[in-house]
Amino acid sequence: MTKQQNNNLVNPWERVDELERKGYRIIQDPERFCFGMDAVLLADFAKAKEGEEILDLGTGTGIIPILMYARYECGHYTGLEIQPESANMASRSVQYNELEEHICIRQGDIKDASQQFGASSMDVITTNPPYMIGMHGIRNPQEPKAVARHEVLCNLEDIIRESARLLKPQGRFYMIHRPFRLAEIFSMMVQYHIEPKRMRLVYPYVDKEPNMVLIEGSRGGKSRITVEKPLIVYDRPNVYTEEILQIYGKKDGNGS
Amino acid sequence: MTKQQNNNLVNPWERVDELERKGYRIIQDPERFCFGMDAVLLADFAKAKEGEEILDLGTGTGIIPILMYARYECGHYTGLEIQPESANMASRSVQYNELEEHICIRQGDIKDASQQFGASSMDVITTNPPYMIGMHGIRNPQEPKAVARHEVLCNLEDIIRESARLLKPQGRFYMIHRPFRLAEIFSMMVQYHIEPKRMRLVYPYVDKEPNMVLIEGSRGGKSRITVEKPLIVYDRPNVYTEEILQIYGKKDGNGS
Repeated sequence: MTKQQNNNLVNPWERVDELERKGYRIIQDPERFCFGMDAVLLADFAKAKEGEEILDLGTGTGIIPILMYARYECGHYTGLEIQPESANMASRSVQYNELEEHICIRQGDIKDASQQFGASSMDVITTNPPYMIGMHGIRNPQEPKAVARHEVLCNLEDIIRESARLLKPQGRFYMIHRPFRLAEIFSMMVQYHIEPKRMRLVYPYVDKEPNMVLIEGSRGGKSRITVEKPLIVYDRPNVYTEEILQIYGKKDGNGS
Repeated sequence: MTKQQNNNLVNPWERVDELERKGYRIIQDPERFCFGMDAVLLADFAKAKEGEEILDLGTGTGIIPILMYARYECGHYTGLEIQPESANMASRSVQYNELEEHICIRQGDIKDASQQFGASSMDVITTNPPYMIGMHGIRNPQEPKAVARHEVLCNLEDIIRESARLLKPQGRFYMIHRPFRLAEIFSMMVQYHIEPKRMRLVYPYVDKEPNMVLIEGSRGGKSRITVEKPLIVYDRPNVYTEEILQIYGKKDGNGS
C-alpha cells in the first residue's frame, strides 16, 4: 500500500505520529487522547512469546499492541476498546501499518470481555487502565479524556475480575498504574488469584516519589514477588536517563 | 548508677555496643542474634508522639524501643519477646540505660498478644518479624537465630491479626520486611483492616533490586498509599549514602 493510500485512512482532524520502531506510525486525535510514556513503558515491561494470544484491555489508539508487535514480532494481539470512534481510529492505525494479520481491534466493554472472548482464552493480558477513582472535577463523563483517565466506564475490580476469567492458567497479566493504589491493586489481584510476580516503580528522579508502577501477575501463581531495580526517568530536567532512551528506541544497534 | 554497677548487668559472654544516640548502649550476645540495619531503619521510619503507647512485637534485644525513645524522647514503649533469655537481656539493656520509666520488656507470645495487653490498647505497633517462610535449611528450630529469621514461632498472619486487635482505631502499624513478600503483606493488611498508607523500598544500590521494605499502616484507614522516594544504602562499596549516615546519627547537628 502506498503512502498516498495510507493517507486516505487519516481524517483531517487527526495526526500521524512516528513510533520510531520499524517505521510504524500511529493515528491520534489530539482532541481525544494521545498516548503517553505509560504506554511505552508497559509495552516494554510486558513480554510476548511465539504463538501467544495477547489481549489489550482498553486499547485506545491501539498503541500497546502496535508497540509490542514492533518489539517482539510474535504473538497475535487483540485490542478491546469501548469507544467506537477510538476503536475505529485504532483499526485504521493497524491498516496503516499493514498489521491486520497480527493485530485485531474489537469494539466492546471490558466488563463483558470474558463473555466476548471466552474464559481461559488468553495467554497474556495488557492494560493501561484509567488511574483515577471517582468523578471529582469531571464536567462531562462521556468526554474521551475523562473515560481514559477516570474510572467512569469500568473500575479496577472489573479489569482484574475479567482478566482472571480471560487468562489461561499461568497466563500473564501486565498493568501500569499509579503507586497510590498499590495496596488495593495487590489485594485485589490476590483475591482474584492473579498472583503479583514482578513489580517495578517508575521514579521521575532518583530523589523523588514514584509516579507509576509496572506490575506483572500470573493466574494461579505462587506467592512471591520480585521487586525490580528503580526505573528512573530523568537524569536532570529534560534529559532522559540512558534506560528511558533505550526503551524509546533512541539508543539501539541501529543508532537511530 | 555508675558504669561499674552497669557492668554487673552484663554476662561474661555478652558484649555492650554503643548506639551513638545520647550515649545509649545495648547488650548483645553474638551467639544469639545481633541487631542489623533493618532495626535501625525501622526505628527511623516509625514515628512516636507524646503520650502514645507503643508496642514492639518480637523485640529481641529491645533495640527498636531503645532507638525510638532515643530519637523521639516521648511515648511509653513495651517490648514483647517470647524467648526468656532474650527478654531478660533486653530488660537488662533497659536498666543499663536507666530507661525503666519509658520502656518495659515483657515475656510472651505474639500469637496471644491481644489477650496479654488487651484489645484496642495500643497507639502504635512496631515489628521487625522473621522474614523467611518455612523451615528449609534449619537444623535446630529452637536456635535463637532460626526463631529471629524464620517463621518458626509465629507467621505474618499472626502478627497482622494480633496487631489489628491491639491497635486503637487509626492506630499506626510499622513493619520492615522483605520485598518478595510485598503482595502477601498488603493483601493480608487489607484483609485485617490495617490499611497500607506509606511504603519505602530500601535499595542497596540505585541500580539494584531492593532488599528491604518499610511499611506504615493505619487501622481502619482509607485506601490510598504514599510510596516514598527510594532509600539507597550505598553510594559505592563500603561507602554509605548521606541519608544512611544521617539515620545512623553520624551526620547530625552534634557533629558526632
